[in-house]
Amino acid sequence: MASVRIREAKEGDCGDILRLIRELAEFEKLLDQVKISEEALRADGFGENPFYHCLVAEILPAPGESLGQGIGSKIIKKVAEVALDKSCSQFRLAVLNWNQKAIDLYKALGAQDLTEAEGWHSFRFEEEAMRKLAGK
Amino acid sequence: MASVRIREAKEGDCGDILRLIRELAEFEKLLDQVKISEEALRADGFGENPFYHCLVAEILPAPGESLGQGIGSKIIKKVAEVALDKSCSQFRLAVLNWNQKAIDLYKALGAQDLTEAEGWHSFRFEEEAMRKLAGK
Repeated sequence: MASVRIREAKEGDCGDILRLIRELAEFEKLLDQVKISEEALRADGFGENPFYHCLVAEILPAPGESLGQGIGSKIIKKVAEVALDKSCSQFRLAVLNWNQKAIDLYKALGAQDLTEAEGWHSFRFEEEAMRKLAGK
Repeated sequence: MASVRIREAKEGDCGDILRLIRELAEFEKLLDQVKISEEALRADGFGENPFYHCLVAEILPAPGESLGQGIGSKIIKKVAEVALDKSCSQFRLAVLNWNQKAIDLYKALGAQDLTEAEGWHSFRFEEEAMRKLAGK
């Protein structure tokens, strides 16, 4: 079985993190929305008051084995562990309504679809709207 | 016209912030989901690495005038300003699909409904699910 080690990201991972962000966005058909640079990822995650925290899964596949077996679950379990350690009372994920594999996984692990259950919609102000609002 | 001053929240505002969280949750028919205490609000927002930042609107209504005129817009404009200063490329809001007044305001100010436009759903793991995942 593949050996998976989950650890906190280091600044040197930012190149790989950006690559994975792009690969996910490509799958989501939203690659044009990825505007962040490796430099910004470094500055935002590894400065004095980080804007984000990140876990990395290091995978050593066993010979002849395909990747992707249970790694999502392992990362989500780790996030739950870290969140409880930090006294978080919940954690949230955003998922596209056609990404059935992800939806099935999150539900199987105990998550609730808040958009379906309670009617939550996600709204976004983009940079142009923000500049207009701020008069900049 | 009412005079409105928007400023950063101080630790001493946490009692009022909790009251407003409760009033909003009551309007949203989700009061049972508010589990945070004033102590947790103080610890999370005013420690060394704050989990959140908060703006407060101080309002001095003019005599005979009703409250609530344009204060939402003013706060959103201020958030856009602060976000741009911090190099954010977007900011997001969550809104219930029956809260038409809020939806109309956000759209009028230039926000896009991501759930409608792109199909984003919000998923939540609650504490019990998190404990199960983390084996705690």
